[in-house]
Amino acid sequence: MLSAKENELLTRTGPGTPMGELFRRFWIPACLSEEISALDGPPLRVKLLGEKLVAFRDSRGRVGLVNRYCAHRGADLFYGRNEEEGIRCVYHGWKFNVDGECVEIPNAVVGPNFKASCKLLSYPTQERGGMVWTYMGPPHLKPELPHYEFLSAPPEKCYVSKFLADGNYLQSLEGECDSGHVGFLHRFISSDKVSAGSTGGQNYVGRIPHITWRIDETDYGLMMAAERDLGDGRVNLRANLFMMPHTVPIATVRGVTMTSHIRVPIDDESTWLYRPRWNPSRTLTDDEIQSFKTAGEDYPDLIPGTYVPKENKDNDYLLDRAAQKTFSFTGIKSLAAQDMAVQYDQCGVIADRTKENLVSADRAIVLMRKRLLKAVRDLQAGKEPAEASNPRAFNARAMDIVIKKEASWKDEMMAAMDLDRAWIAEVS
Amino acid sequence: MLSAKENELLTRTGPGTPMGELFRRFWIPACLSEEISALDGPPLRVKLLGEKLVAFRDSRGRVGLVNRYCAHRGADLFYGRNEEEGIRCVYHGWKFNVDGECVEIPNAVVGPNFKASCKLLSYPTQERGGMVWTYMGPPHLKPELPHYEFLSAPPEKCYVSKFLADGNYLQSLEGECDSGHVGFLHRFISSDKVSAGSTGGQNYVGRIPHITWRIDETDYGLMMAAERDLGDGRVNLRANLFMMPHTVPIATVRGVTMTSHIRVPIDDESTWLYRPRWNPSRTLTDDEIQSFKTAGEDYPDLIPGTYVPKENKDNDYLLDRAAQKTFSFTGIKSLAAQDMAVQYDQCGVIADRTKENLVSADRAIVLMRKRLLKAVRDLQAGKEPAEASNPRAFNARAMDIVIKKEASWKDEMMAAMDLDRAWIAEVS
Amino acid sequence: MLSAKENELLTRTGPGTPMGELFRRFWIPACLSEEISALDGPPLRVKLLGEKLVAFRDSRGRVGLVNRYCAHRGADLFYGRNEEEGIRCVYHGWKFNVDGECVEIPNAVVGPNFKASCKLLSYPTQERGGMVWTYMGPPHLKPELPHYEFLSAPPEKCYVSKFLADGNYLQSLEGECDSGHVGFLHRFISSDKVSAGSTGGQNYVGRIPHITWRIDETDYGLMMAAERDLGDGRVNLRANLFMMPHTVPIATVRGVTMTSHIRVPIDDESTWLYRPRWNPSRTLTDDEIQSFKTAGEDYPDLIPGTYVPKENKDNDYLLDRAAQKTFSFTGIKSLAAQDMAVQYDQCGVIADRTKENLVSADRAIVLMRKRLLKAVRDLQAGKEPAEASNPRAFNARAMDIVIKKEASWKDEMMAAMDLDRAWIAEVS
Repeated sequence: MLSAKENELLTRTGPGTPMGELFRRFWIPACLSEEISALDGPPLRVKLLGEKLVAFRDSRGRVGLVNRYCAHRGADLFYGRNEEEGIRCVYHGWKFNVDGECVEIPNAVVGPNFKASCKLLSYPTQERGGMVWTYMGPPHLKPELPHYEFLSAPPEKCYVSKFLADGNYLQSLEGECDSGHVGFLHRFISSDKVSAGSTGGQNYVGRIPHITWRIDETDYGLMMAAERDLGDGRVNLRANLFMMPHTVPIATVRGVTMTSHIRVPIDDESTWLYRPRWNPSRTLTDDEIQSFKTAGEDYPDLIPGTYVPKENKDNDYLLDRAAQKTFSFTGIKSLAAQDMAVQYDQCGVIADRTKENLVSADRAIVLMRKRLLKAVRDLQAGKEPAEASNPRAFNARAMDIVIKKEASWKDEMMAAMDLDRAWIAEVS
Repeated sequence: MLSAKENELLTRTGPGTPMGELFRRFWIPACLSEEISALDGPPLRVKLLGEKLVAFRDSRGRVGLVNRYCAHRGADLFYGRNEEEGIRCVYHGWKFNVDGECVEIPNAVVGPNFKASCKLLSYPTQERGGMVWTYMGPPHLKPELPHYEFLSAPPEKCYVSKFLADGNYLQSLEGECDSGHVGFLHRFISSDKVSAGSTGGQNYVGRIPHITWRIDETDYGLMMAAERDLGDGRVNLRANLFMMPHTVPIATVRGVTMTSHIRVPIDDESTWLYRPRWNPSRTLTDDEIQSFKTAGEDYPDLIPGTYVPKENKDNDYLLDRAAQKTFSFTGIKSLAAQDMAVQYDQCGVIADRTKENLVSADRAIVLMRKRLLKAVRDLQAGKEPAEASNPRAFNARAMDIVIKKEASWKDEMMAAMDLDRAWIAEVS
Repeated sequence: MLSAKENELLTRTGPGTPMGELFRRFWIPACLSEEISALDGPPLRVKLLGEKLVAFRDSRGRVGLVNRYCAHRGADLFYGRNEEEGIRCVYHGWKFNVDGECVEIPNAVVGPNFKASCKLLSYPTQERGGMVWTYMGPPHLKPELPHYEFLSAPPEKCYVSKFLADGNYLQSLEGECDSGHVGFLHRFISSDKVSAGSTGGQNYVGRIPHITWRIDETDYGLMMAAERDLGDGRVNLRANLFMMPHTVPIATVRGVTMTSHIRVPIDDESTWLYRPRWNPSRTLTDDEIQSFKTAGEDYPDLIPGTYVPKENKDNDYLLDRAAQKTFSFTGIKSLAAQDMAVQYDQCGVIADRTKENLVSADRAIVLMRKRLLKAVRDLQAGKEPAEASNPRAFNARAMDIVIKKEASWKDEMMAAMDLDRAWIAEVS
């Protein structure tokens, strides 16, 4: 349970908000590379943390991410011409390069100082892993890109998709710190199988409802291991990682293609969900990539030409009551839409967390919020988030393992990560 | 004319508003039985007096009406599973019975006190006359269901429909305390006939525009008799009844199938209109029931699968200007839509009653508002509405009769009711 | 650049706002005559300067423009019956004539004083040039209709169209005080031609990007001549006129069919743009009139049965990125939609003018705003706008001429107007 004030603090991300400032200390995805693939191609409207921007790839392949409105009289640069190393406003032909610098004012004779003063707000970008990353914070604090494992994968081993998630980023993020929900929300009726995003494993999440949390504070955030007692002296540990402020690698059995989820607030009521899939041990298969692109149990079917799921809040996620009776717990097709159905409106589009009744299964959520709250308050007090300046910390892996009950969970988990990496080094 | 303050007082019905509190002293319809007909069938979103609720029929046929959001973390119970005597949240499987009691928390080990503290807000329900009734006020004040006559009719003699009425309940209700409008709004051009909801009679409302009000304060509210002088020593009396706080039986000639209108605020800009039709003297005919279900002069045609009229504010009630020239006063097809066209926006979606110019024909409206205002203010001062605890008072009938001019209208009206009942007892 | 306060002052036009008051000192178009062409035809909803009105043509051809809500209980007169010299509310039959006077109260016996007190707010109208004009200011200040030249043209020489322009009137108006934008926004790629609304001339606007402003304060507002140096000792002068508070005749070469633009705020986020086309020297041809009615380079294609362009903000003005690469500067088809694309959202639907970087090419915009601001502030201080009471001043013509560089631009412009009129007198 949070106070109303804490809830506001964590859920508002626009310019000038405390949580918005925290987001602005980290590199975040601005769009997929494929959205602005062509040199001098169409400019793309990008809304990030409540700011209206436009992204474009210039003639040399560089990506600009600048204020959406021309410095002259505010015309919308979405309508602009992307040509000859810059974006040109169609109203009077003013031109700006990828750094937002005004490089041409063709409708008047002006001095260099004036031109310099017409620089657009712009944010630095980097392209990695099929995504355009940006950093929207104070320039002198700009860190290195976090060493997310998927960013080190070669293109043939990694594929990134995205979709529009209805609602506030935090409700969506809480779902990843909540191993227990998988065995309910994503369960099939006819079996104890769950639609768990193909992360491999023996489906303990479907069979064992009770979990005990093993949670470790780390340099990147939290390692959140959900322990399930297998009843034979062993326990299953599924450890999603909460990486500050918005990334969650999903616990996966060795060798299986891995998944991370990155949530980017568009504004406080809608969120982009980026989903890298990668397998360091082998090239992704065509079938696999096809399954990431098309609707199935896991991925939502998108409205053609958009990243908007066909299953969305305006159609009750295409809920099928007959299927809910006989086939799946929700009667909603994709795992992504199942999540949105319960997360979009939790007693409010901004969830009312003053009215919760939390249980032991919610401990990871509680700690994740605490970690965020502490960072937000530290930043308000002038203390920068240590995670932002520690990019190497983010090179961690989310494992799904089985160990002896009496073993030290943390040691086993770290050992599993090392073993996994050694195995990959061998096979790849 | 009302002051701005009085207008606010009467038109706002959300939680904590004075008029909302008054509504919460009476049993009101929550939905039709047919909307949740199946045992363990799909839960139904119900918005009542600005509160978001969910209704469901459990395995034993009992109807629950509870807060729409799970007690755990606020997930939307509309997506819930209705099964085995309760509704189960699909997020983590918490389960609640029709009384809102939390009966299962499958994802954690909790004590009985915790479970008890997770009770959902719930309202008592009763099913009568094809409707699910609820009482949303203080439990210790819960009265008996009012003895509306249609509630005593056996199923074969009664049929209830409903539709979504655009706008605030009070504007819609005022239309029923306004016998005079029938001869204008609902008139046909080619004749002096009116589309008066098939209440029988000699069509005096179409022929005689001037009315004199005979109004009596009663235990249930008001008997509002519109007197029309027939010019031969006789007068016609049409007496709709205003039953606190929102029900109006419509004046009907003896033997004709009767009608009541019950208006339930969804919020302050939309209203359910429930319409029981019943005939105590005989079984309703198939043709009759068909006419209640389908579009005609009286009933609006509904968008399939909904209770939303095809004629609505978004399409100007399908106004046909050619028909308005030659066929009917409005050029709008159904009586219901004719009403909505003039009632939806009366100088505001919440009518601005500070700008009216009322005449003698509006006397019933004035007295209805006064009756409501007095009850609202009494309740604010701690005095409970007497009508709520007097269910027998509601067993009154709305008659359309012709009497001698010099007769006592009230005595004649009461005598007519008694005669009518005697006749019914004889024929049925 | 304006202060935030000045920006508010100029862009808000509702009742009681300073700019709204200024608008209410001038005759403005309320609708086209064709929108209420028939005697006793359908009433028309008219929203002007934020006020909800209804227009109707009575049995004798007179046009009423009155408050949209009945004086009795506020029913919507849009649904009214227009018959026998008045509009009749369909709720209770009250009837009002074109002056808003209540001429019949058929549902009650009332005295003449009561009836007189039920007068609707109404505004005087005049029909001229295919438009219904109204004056919404203090009656005792009502001026003569401005002597716009197109109002003196006989019907066969003049044609007026209108369309809904997205956004605030001022952004749209600024576009007319901005000769320079034509050579960018409306340019074709394959040639240096521009889509300049067929105003004739040698296409200097397309070839010569730099302009020098020659601006004269006049009795009607501003003569704004954009000078382009032809490099041979001559200059081209294109002089749009800013006529207070919202009319702009467009600079045209002698003999070519002329254009004026009149912008009428519906509210602060949408605007009617009326466009008279006239040729005093000859009858408009069928082809010409057809081109004014249908989509082309200049006129937007309208959604059938409406005055709403098919190209609008909800579909990004049907932007065609391929066409933008090879055909036209914007890839948007009509000149009107090109303007809206850059004017609808200029760092806000109400442009944020505190963030501009103006250049010499914007001088006419600056002076236009100053002229408006001064008039607004004078009126706030009790000083009526002189232009409103000087209708003859508006009989000026917007010329596109070529003169010797050293000549006096103002003398030449006035001489050209005189010569033009003499020529017209001769040929027509």
